[in-house]
Amino acid sequence: MPADRILVVNSGSSSVKLRVVETDGTVSAKEDLGPPGEHLGDTLADFLARSEPPDATAHRVVHGGGQFSAATVIDDAARAALDRTALLAPLHNPPALIAIDASRRLLAGKPCIACFDTAFHATIGPAASTYAIPTSWRAGWGVRRYGFHGLSCAWASRRAPEVLSPASLRLASQAGRGLRMVICHLGSGASVSAVEDGRSVDTTMGFSPLEGLVMSSRPGDLDPAVVLLALRRGLTAEQVDDALEHRSGLLGLSDGRSADMRDLLEARRLGDGPAGLAVSVFVHRLRAKIAAMAAATSGTDAVVFTGGIGENSAEIRAEVCDGLGWMGIDIDTEANEAASGSDGDITGRSSTVGVAVITAREELQMAAEAQGALHAD
Amino acid sequence: MPADRILVVNSGSSSVKLRVVETDGTVSAKEDLGPPGEHLGDTLADFLARSEPPDATAHRVVHGGGQFSAATVIDDAARAALDRTALLAPLHNPPALIAIDASRRLLAGKPCIACFDTAFHATIGPAASTYAIPTSWRAGWGVRRYGFHGLSCAWASRRAPEVLSPASLRLASQAGRGLRMVICHLGSGASVSAVEDGRSVDTTMGFSPLEGLVMSSRPGDLDPAVVLLALRRGLTAEQVDDALEHRSGLLGLSDGRSADMRDLLEARRLGDGPAGLAVSVFVHRLRAKIAAMAAATSGTDAVVFTGGIGENSAEIRAEVCDGLGWMGIDIDTEANEAASGSDGDITGRSSTVGVAVITAREELQMAAEAQGALHAD
Repeated sequence: MPADRILVVNSGSSSVKLRVVETDGTVSAKEDLGPPGEHLGDTLADFLARSEPPDATAHRVVHGGGQFSAATVIDDAARAALDRTALLAPLHNPPALIAIDASRRLLAGKPCIACFDTAFHATIGPAASTYAIPTSWRAGWGVRRYGFHGLSCAWASRRAPEVLSPASLRLASQAGRGLRMVICHLGSGASVSAVEDGRSVDTTMGFSPLEGLVMSSRPGDLDPAVVLLALRRGLTAEQVDDALEHRSGLLGLSDGRSADMRDLLEARRLGDGPAGLAVSVFVHRLRAKIAAMAAATSGTDAVVFTGGIGENSAEIRAEVCDGLGWMGIDIDTEANEAASGSDGDITGRSSTVGVAVITAREELQMAAEAQGALHAD
Repeated sequence: MPADRILVVNSGSSSVKLRVVETDGTVSAKEDLGPPGEHLGDTLADFLARSEPPDATAHRVVHGGGQFSAATVIDDAARAALDRTALLAPLHNPPALIAIDASRRLLAGKPCIACFDTAFHATIGPAASTYAIPTSWRAGWGVRRYGFHGLSCAWASRRAPEVLSPASLRLASQAGRGLRMVICHLGSGASVSAVEDGRSVDTTMGFSPLEGLVMSSRPGDLDPAVVLLALRRGLTAEQVDDALEHRSGLLGLSDGRSADMRDLLEARRLGDGPAGLAVSVFVHRLRAKIAAMAAATSGTDAVVFTGGIGENSAEIRAEVCDGLGWMGIDIDTEANEAASGSDGDITGRSSTVGVAVITAREELQMAAEAQGALHAD
């Protein structure tokens, strides 16, 4: 049974974001609560007392493990299965589990749906999803490329073809095959995904959200020998984990100046060396990953920028695309400047690949996935 | 002072390969000894007793750390500095150090030169060489992308322009800039490097030889969280290290069937699933890395295959290039079949990128680098 009004809950380590999405896609209420904890039941009850009662709740869950490959109505059995994903994502899933438990208690009788950041990537085939490690690690521990940012990717994949003009997709329309896109989600976490005909084919994040691009405070790709060196140098596994989650990425590259790309671009303008290094490593890796993801679909028809940096930094978009002319990528300078903060087609006149900016609307994607799960239920 | 006859020593964990290279580049004697150990002095003395006496010895050393960016004549100070690279390459440098000590003892008075697999990559700039990790790890521990297979890359970079016809390099000759090449060294270790105007710009191996492509028994790129998971699952750092060095890569992907690509291709032909998976992951990653390395030079003029698999497997070359038509890469089927085991231009008629097969001749590269070091000395 479809729901009319869906409360969408996005629980991170530092905040719980609430959005009420109506059937027509409008957001009728929004509020950001503090970090999830014991008090979440109280603040969530306060919010519900002030709002029109939702018909269902949709929760973003980072890691669905091998079991959840689509949004799922959470009954007691599914809730128990979610607990078993904790070992796969010890830092990222627990906030969502706290919020799920609070909403199931406060909205008993109303369906509660979990939407997974891994689900969109369940279509990735073995050649891209398998790590070259012993079978016992893969089969026994569930180690594979899961991929994340699936909600954002799914939204951008759906929206980009509406935003790109037929002229920007001219090669794709000539070829008569499924549209191939490279989706760059550049937020505090960041990943690039290859999408063909609406399905994920490959992505740069892997078993965890540590792999791939340089992020705010996570390293992206890192030689596994560096982890082993840190242990030999006397760090505990917990200290290494903490350094890779919280003190790496842009923050680590910039000698601790900032984890925020806006600060680093400003500092670079003022001549700051470490800030400049952080930006240059970010851009270098992003170009490489766009090319690598295009390889996964034997070329691409469009590149899409989304997420905080992807949506708002015309400077980063220009710098990245400037190095990708060999792939047929060219952007329109004015359109690029104008697109920040709104959906836009920024394809340049000579480009053979469409380039789009799409505002991430994970809450709408989650509401749509929740409706789908309720229909299927 | 240049030397006339150079004894080239390539020490690995399982064998010590000796080649005597004359000034004209001919190899006048060759012998493969067993693994380096206490007895190496004796077997090396036996070899020297049967050979024309060399004027100098050149040793391959895997990791030169931050200190050695070119082939270096080993005096006592340099020998002490080599000991300090041991922490960076605990598994890979020690065999060479044993051989260096033996040859310095047996050939006292004759110069001994160390040739580093990292040296060719010393030109890689900060955007490509810097990991997004805390400053203390980078500055304090010397963690950066060093890159390996430099001797093979240097040889292939020098040789490929001689092998590729002007027609195969037509775009490069039009552009009037330094030749850009992607060098694929595919041996039991494997890496892809971006070279521009004879200088390394980027490479897929990093701080250690674990990163990048899938190799015989090493994993290539791996989410660092997988190392942390293995520790949480109760493995020691030493057990993880051993698994990543010796039980991963093609061997791990194929459920232990083989670390040798020839076996896996044969098994795949017979319908073996795990062997087929191993080949498909290898090829998928290789295509992605060729594209990523092309991005480092804003496009490429040529792709070069070298190393055991790169030289001998027309099947792998064809499969990899088959997915890279979007980059302008096309190979000539007959030339590809004919090239195995010898240098050859396999560029296809419609290709806009030259494609070459180059036999790895690290012994000639080492002899040349040793001559260069003696000239400079």
